[in-house]
Amino acid sequence: MKRTISILGATGSVGSSTLDLVERSPDRFEVVALTAATNAEALAKAARRTNARLAVVANEAALPQLQAQLAGTQCRAAAGMDALIEAAAGEADLVMAAIVGCAGLVPVMAAVEAGRTVALANKEALVSAGALMTKAATRSGATILPVDSEHNAIFQCLAGNRKVDVSKLILTASGGPFRTWPQDQIEAATPAQAVAHPNWSMGAKISVDSATLMNKGLELIEAHHLFALPSDRIEIVIHPQSVIHSLVEFVDGSMLAQLGSADMRIPIAYALAWPERMPSPSERLSLAAIGRLDFETPDLERFPALEIARSALEAGGAAPTILNAANEVAVMRFLAGKLRFAEITKLVERALDRVSEPQPASIEEVIEIDLRTRANVESMIEEICN
Amino acid sequence: MKRTISILGATGSVGSSTLDLVERSPDRFEVVALTAATNAEALAKAARRTNARLAVVANEAALPQLQAQLAGTQCRAAAGMDALIEAAAGEADLVMAAIVGCAGLVPVMAAVEAGRTVALANKEALVSAGALMTKAATRSGATILPVDSEHNAIFQCLAGNRKVDVSKLILTASGGPFRTWPQDQIEAATPAQAVAHPNWSMGAKISVDSATLMNKGLELIEAHHLFALPSDRIEIVIHPQSVIHSLVEFVDGSMLAQLGSADMRIPIAYALAWPERMPSPSERLSLAAIGRLDFETPDLERFPALEIARSALEAGGAAPTILNAANEVAVMRFLAGKLRFAEITKLVERALDRVSEPQPASIEEVIEIDLRTRANVESMIEEICN
Repeated sequence: MKRTISILGATGSVGSSTLDLVERSPDRFEVVALTAATNAEALAKAARRTNARLAVVANEAALPQLQAQLAGTQCRAAAGMDALIEAAAGEADLVMAAIVGCAGLVPVMAAVEAGRTVALANKEALVSAGALMTKAATRSGATILPVDSEHNAIFQCLAGNRKVDVSKLILTASGGPFRTWPQDQIEAATPAQAVAHPNWSMGAKISVDSATLMNKGLELIEAHHLFALPSDRIEIVIHPQSVIHSLVEFVDGSMLAQLGSADMRIPIAYALAWPERMPSPSERLSLAAIGRLDFETPDLERFPALEIARSALEAGGAAPTILNAANEVAVMRFLAGKLRFAEITKLVERALDRVSEPQPASIEEVIEIDLRTRANVESMIEEICN
Repeated sequence: MKRTISILGATGSVGSSTLDLVERSPDRFEVVALTAATNAEALAKAARRTNARLAVVANEAALPQLQAQLAGTQCRAAAGMDALIEAAAGEADLVMAAIVGCAGLVPVMAAVEAGRTVALANKEALVSAGALMTKAATRSGATILPVDSEHNAIFQCLAGNRKVDVSKLILTASGGPFRTWPQDQIEAATPAQAVAHPNWSMGAKISVDSATLMNKGLELIEAHHLFALPSDRIEIVIHPQSVIHSLVEFVDGSMLAQLGSADMRIPIAYALAWPERMPSPSERLSLAAIGRLDFETPDLERFPALEIARSALEAGGAAPTILNAANEVAVMRFLAGKLRFAEITKLVERALDRVSEPQPASIEEVIEIDLRTRANVESMIEEICN
C-alpha cells in the first residue's frame, strides 16, 4: 500500500530533496499536500508532477498566481496560516516538516497535536519549543522522526535498542572552516570566509552557525529534546570529514555509528521509509577511498558558542528560545557586514544575560519571546554600531 | 527473572571472559553447566564460584580429579562426549559455545539441534560446517548469536533493520603485523614476528591467521553463513586501529558501524544480554583520544589468503572445511619452525586443488574431511621438508 505524505516547505532544500525521493518511488508514495512560503510557480509545478491534492502558499498575495498555475488540475490551491495548518494536520501517513525558521512552528505543532508521524527538519521546533513539542507528542501519540543528519544518525543507531541501555550520545561536528585558525584570525573572519563550509553545501545562515559551532550547540539542544537525555550525557566531538554523522554509546561499552556521504537524501530517505528503508540515489561511501577519519576535542576557547548553548540548555526556561533568536539576528547582521565575527556569540551571551523570560507555555509565547529577543538584539546592535 | 546459562569451554579465553561478566552480574544469570577440555582444577573452581549444577571435562582421565575437587558441592561432575552433549543440549536460556577447534563441533551442533539460543564463539562451527549449522538452526528454531567481534558488530548493526534492506557487509581487518611490509620480507617472516599482533592479545594460531589475513578469509565464510549473503556482498577493508569492528551498508546509502575497545567482553556482553544490553567493565572509547582512524583496500598480492578463502566460499562443497583444516596444520607447522611463512597459504591452496570432496552431509563427515585434510597436508609438508 502506498504511504501518503504531505510536505511542508516543499520548495526549500529539504523539501526538494524529499520530492526528489518521492518522485523516484511513485509506487511507494502518494502526495497529499505541498506547501511553500511564496514561490507559487515552483509549488504548482511540484503539485502537478506529483498529483498533489492540496497546494498551500503561506503568503496570501501569491494565491492568485498559484490558482492560475493549477487551473485544470484536481489540486486545490489555498493560502495563509489556516490552510498551512490544514496541510500539516490533515490525514497523511507522514508529514515532512521542512519549513525554515519560526514560520514553521505553528504548522509543525498542528501536525504533532494531530498525532501525525512527523519527519522534523525544522530546527526551531526543537530548539525554541522543544519541551512543548515533545510534551504534545506524548499527549497525542505523534511520532517525531529527526531529519537533521546528526539526529537521524542517532535515531538509526537507537533502532533495535532500549533507551535505558544508552549511556551517552556523541554528536559529530565538522569544526567548520575555522577549525584550525588561531583565535585572533577567527574573531576577524569575514562573511565570505565564514560561509565556505568544507563538507556540506548549505545556506549562508547555517554555514555561519557551523563556523561559530553554534550549529552544534543548537543540535545539542535538539538532541536533548529528541532523545530525552540530560546535557551531561550528550558529547560533541570534532570530526572534520563529516563521514560519521553521530554515535551512541551503550552501557556495555559498544558504540554504534551511522556513516554516509554528505547528501541529505540519506536521512530523508530513512525518515520517509521508517521503520523500513528505501533505495536512495546518494553516492555510496568507500572508507578505503576516504582513507582517514580524524577526531578531536572541541576547543571551547576559540568556539565559545558550544558552551553558551549548553548553558542555555541547562538553564532551561526561555533560554533556548532566546539563544536561537539572538543568534539568528546576530548572524544576519554579521552577514550584512554590521558585526564582527566574534561579536555574534558575545551578543547571544548578552541577550541571555539581559532578558529574563519564563518558560513559554505555548507556541504563541515562544514566538513572542522570539520576536522580543530579536528586537532586543537589534537595539544592542544599534548601540554597538553607534 | 534470571537467565540460565551453560558455558562450553569455560576455562578458555572467551569462556573466562564470559564467566567474568556472569560473576559480575549474579542477579542476572544462573549457571547451569560448565565444560572444559582437561583443566579440572580451573573448571571446579569456576563451578564452585558460580554454583553450577553440572561440570564436564571432555577428557575422561580428568574426571577423578574433577570429582575430588567438587566433593561436598551440589555440582555433578561428568566426562566424555555424551556429557558434553548433555551440557550443550540441556535446558538453558543461553549456551555459550566457546570450545576451540573441531572438538566443539558435536556439542555446538547438539545445542543447535535442541533449538537453544547459542552464542557462537567456535569459528570451526561456521567455517567448516556452516551450511549444516544454519540448516539445523532453521529446522530447530535455534538462534545463533555471533560472538566474534566482527560478526557481533554486524549483528548489532542489523538490529532494528530488515535483512532485505542490507546492500552489503564490510568486515574490517587490522591488516596484521605485516600490513606495511614488502612481499619478500613477509614471505620470510618468523613465527615471533607473526604472532606480534598490533591490537588484540590472542593465541599464536589466530595471530598467524591475522598475519596472513586468513583470519579475515575465515570470517568472510562465517559472515556468509551467519547473514545469508553471497560472497560478492561481503567486502573487506583494512582498518589498522581495529576501532570499527565492522559495518553494514543499507539500500539507502546509510552505513551503520559498531565501535569498541579491543575487549572481547563487549561482544560477549551483547550476546549474553541480547536482545537487551548489560553493563560491562570494558574500557570506553574516546574518539578524540584515538584521534585518527585509517582505512585501505587489502593488497591481495601480498596477502593471497583472502582470495583463497573467498574462492573456497564460492566453490562451496567441502572446500571451506578443507581450507580451515589445511590452514590449521600449516600454521602449526610454521609455528614449529617447519615451514616458511609464504608456504602457509601455498599449502592451503594445494590442499584445495588436490582434494576433491563432496559437500559434507553431517558433522561426522565434516570431522572426517577435516582429519583427512590434515593427514594430506602433513604428508605434503613431509615432501617439502625432505
